[in-house]
Amino acid sequence: MPEFSAKQLAEMVGGRIIGREDVTIADLSGLEQAGAGDLAFLRDKNRAAQAEGCKASILVTPIELASYAGVQVVCEDADMALARVLSAFAEQRFPRPQGVSPRASVHPSVSVGRNVAVADFAFVGEGTVLGDDVVIYPHVYVGRDCRIGARTTLYANVSVHDRVIIGADCIIRYNAVLGSDGFGFIQRGGRNVKLAQVGGVRIGNNVEIGSLTTVDRATMDETVVEDGTKIDSHCHVAHNCHVGPECIMAGYAKLAGSVRLGKGVICAEDSGVNDHGTVADGAIIGGLAGVPGNVPAGAYMLGAPARPAAEQRRIWAIMGRLPQMLEKLRRLEKEVEELRGRPAAGA
Amino acid sequence: MPEFSAKQLAEMVGGRIIGREDVTIADLSGLEQAGAGDLAFLRDKNRAAQAEGCKASILVTPIELASYAGVQVVCEDADMALARVLSAFAEQRFPRPQGVSPRASVHPSVSVGRNVAVADFAFVGEGTVLGDDVVIYPHVYVGRDCRIGARTTLYANVSVHDRVIIGADCIIRYNAVLGSDGFGFIQRGGRNVKLAQVGGVRIGNNVEIGSLTTVDRATMDETVVEDGTKIDSHCHVAHNCHVGPECIMAGYAKLAGSVRLGKGVICAEDSGVNDHGTVADGAIIGGLAGVPGNVPAGAYMLGAPARPAAEQRRIWAIMGRLPQMLEKLRRLEKEVEELRGRPAAGA
Amino acid sequence: MPEFSAKQLAEMVGGRIIGREDVTIADLSGLEQAGAGDLAFLRDKNRAAQAEGCKASILVTPIELASYAGVQVVCEDADMALARVLSAFAEQRFPRPQGVSPRASVHPSVSVGRNVAVADFAFVGEGTVLGDDVVIYPHVYVGRDCRIGARTTLYANVSVHDRVIIGADCIIRYNAVLGSDGFGFIQRGGRNVKLAQVGGVRIGNNVEIGSLTTVDRATMDETVVEDGTKIDSHCHVAHNCHVGPECIMAGYAKLAGSVRLGKGVICAEDSGVNDHGTVADGAIIGGLAGVPGNVPAGAYMLGAPARPAAEQRRIWAIMGRLPQMLEKLRRLEKEVEELRGRPAAGA
Repeated sequence: MPEFSAKQLAEMVGGRIIGREDVTIADLSGLEQAGAGDLAFLRDKNRAAQAEGCKASILVTPIELASYAGVQVVCEDADMALARVLSAFAEQRFPRPQGVSPRASVHPSVSVGRNVAVADFAFVGEGTVLGDDVVIYPHVYVGRDCRIGARTTLYANVSVHDRVIIGADCIIRYNAVLGSDGFGFIQRGGRNVKLAQVGGVRIGNNVEIGSLTTVDRATMDETVVEDGTKIDSHCHVAHNCHVGPECIMAGYAKLAGSVRLGKGVICAEDSGVNDHGTVADGAIIGGLAGVPGNVPAGAYMLGAPARPAAEQRRIWAIMGRLPQMLEKLRRLEKEVEELRGRPAAGA
Repeated sequence: MPEFSAKQLAEMVGGRIIGREDVTIADLSGLEQAGAGDLAFLRDKNRAAQAEGCKASILVTPIELASYAGVQVVCEDADMALARVLSAFAEQRFPRPQGVSPRASVHPSVSVGRNVAVADFAFVGEGTVLGDDVVIYPHVYVGRDCRIGARTTLYANVSVHDRVIIGADCIIRYNAVLGSDGFGFIQRGGRNVKLAQVGGVRIGNNVEIGSLTTVDRATMDETVVEDGTKIDSHCHVAHNCHVGPECIMAGYAKLAGSVRLGKGVICAEDSGVNDHGTVADGAIIGGLAGVPGNVPAGAYMLGAPARPAAEQRRIWAIMGRLPQMLEKLRRLEKEVEELRGRPAAGA
Repeated sequence: MPEFSAKQLAEMVGGRIIGREDVTIADLSGLEQAGAGDLAFLRDKNRAAQAEGCKASILVTPIELASYAGVQVVCEDADMALARVLSAFAEQRFPRPQGVSPRASVHPSVSVGRNVAVADFAFVGEGTVLGDDVVIYPHVYVGRDCRIGARTTLYANVSVHDRVIIGADCIIRYNAVLGSDGFGFIQRGGRNVKLAQVGGVRIGNNVEIGSLTTVDRATMDETVVEDGTKIDSHCHVAHNCHVGPECIMAGYAKLAGSVRLGKGVICAEDSGVNDHGTVADGAIIGGLAGVPGNVPAGAYMLGAPARPAAEQRRIWAIMGRLPQMLEKLRRLEKEVEELRGRPAAGA
């Protein structure tokens, strides 16, 4: 188990210590769950009262606390501090494989960078280039003529088709599939005729691809995922999509063929965009939303078919009152009938 | 092919034989499809008439039938009988691998119980503990410091990250992923910054995890699936979820981060629960339902956003009449206009 | 990189050359993106104007163009021409593995056809039959007593359970799972009791199964996918389904237990059919649609729960006007109240 002292943590996050700098922690936990030997984080200043009573040995906090009993590491950006500490823990808890295993199958033509790990039973095909510090877990399949950038990690059972290009500092999680066939057919005489897919896949730098996620290769040309984009598990980027930089795709987000996402687009859990749809910079596709066409920059869409969020929420609210609306309508109908049917008053 | 006599079957299910006890069957089939040499089950007493004409050689039935031509095994709980007979067939039809293959990669530090199977090309990492009778199929990846309980089976291409704990009598189906990164990021200056995930995953006893299903490890602390819960294929249990005992999650059921399910909760096909949602004991989340918040014990929810089932069904029914409602509304509007526009009668 | 001359292309597609037959291309691209050295296709005659200005060296076109500067290959059915050319490119770009690797695990009892490839770390179990020209990529698991038809390809990390039957000319894409447990349980005393699944899976000829797709084995009897059906990634065919010939299932299409699809059914992206539903020949289940029951031949269904498409579209349109309808209803209510409340005129 990793152990860090207050001093080490303060250096790691660029913080200032209040209390003894030699106190150590061996684990992290939430404000409420944390106990002796734990590190906790006050991420939301509104929870300061709760933090005062926190039992953690060390607390990273953006503000100095008056009555908290442990050691404080005061650091303006507690979220970034958390990111750094989590990375340090991860490195110690989950040590990476080392070296190229004799039980791996690495074609003699493969270009292997410095400090590369290829674990048992991994397969790397002819002509592929592995950058420095690349880590390949067991049972990974990498086809021919791929390029994998420096410091990129491929976890177990990942499949990478021939000629796929992956940038530097990427994480490809377990059982993900890059470069599988796009889904293209024509129909002739009642039969489906396959359109073979001969394009490629290009993944930028600093991209994360979730477990059991697919990025299909293009029919022609390339399917692209740009730098900094993070894709969760069970997602699908279909053939010829172009996903811009710094996008987020949560679990089961799905892009049909030839979709374009701009910069910083967020596709929430189980959302989808139809064939050839475009979603402009900074737009948010809400959970479960199904986008049939194009979405302007900064828009927030909900529902299926998707509408602007405020409109959709209003519609959902009214749907809850449909039974009353129907009843009211029936009553009115009757009343109007009466009014109309009533012989002209005073007649 | 397995073959069982009426005598063996009666012992297996605790039933009583009517007819010759040496008659044998080699296969199972439905009441209508079954023929000579087959075993069939009358599970629903309302279908007794159909069972009378069944062509199976042996029938397990909760009630004595008057005119059925084959051998009857009378057994009050035909469903439990079916469960037992299916298990016996499965054991014979799908024999488990035996022994630790020299073509597997098992770290010398691994603690291997009695009668364990580790098949060709499986990988078991440093410090992991395999209980008695554990079965590991080819291409399974098990990381470091995992614990796998007695009689648990991991099918081919399953991936298990470091430090995951799996109980006894579990079935982890093909290509499932346990302990992959939870999906956590913060944003700084327009860039996504990863929150490494350093928590764990703990799976109870007697749990089934479907093919291509993911259970992500916690950011800190643990993602938990308790005893007896059965999860189908293509499901997602995100980081820090706590799934209670004896729950059912059907295909594509998805729990976003930090969701809590109580005891015996049912999440039907393609349903989902949002971040931090809680679903209390015995609640049912219907097919395709999307639950935004909390669900009380025993509730039955439908729709997205989900509502109580009766209410949602009523709304769906009325939605079907929206065209008529709109027309009616327009007609009324006109009629009221006429009524209002009409100069006061008798004026 | 493959290179084809106009002459070769004309022979491949059965077309007629206008221009020099020795001009070559090395890549394919879209009408707009194509440049020197590329081949392009005019698939839609309405885009002829655009094709005239296309920069590709060779153009396959169903009609002779007046002012296009490159070499024309005139061929009535440009779509079929595209299918043929893509196949030729794919064969050259993605060469198949050759031979049975000594690093594969092939049981001595396996029947291996002519020209079969079994790559490193692939596993083929006892009693399985591999037809001529079968290609098995690394990390594929094939259990016992399976049959794999001629010219069928299994990509890396595919899992095939015991006794699964796959026809000829099939493509099983990366990390797909065939023959995993159907999801069956009974409940006794608050506990879930598994119904082991002892049936099989039978896949016809010329079927494509997408990456990360599951076809579960039947409880008893067989789960069937008939000839010519194409299934995309992330799909689920549950136990005891029967999928007819020449169907299309797009990404995340899901069939619950015992569903029957007729001939040529299309299930669009993320659609689903409930347990025991039947969908007759030529019906279309639209994107995101959830079909609760039976669908007649040729019907086109949308929405969840699904309705005939025209009806559903009308309902969606009216839903967009619900806020106005509510307002109108309130106004009418008030007006009618006034009308009713007004003391009888002239009284």
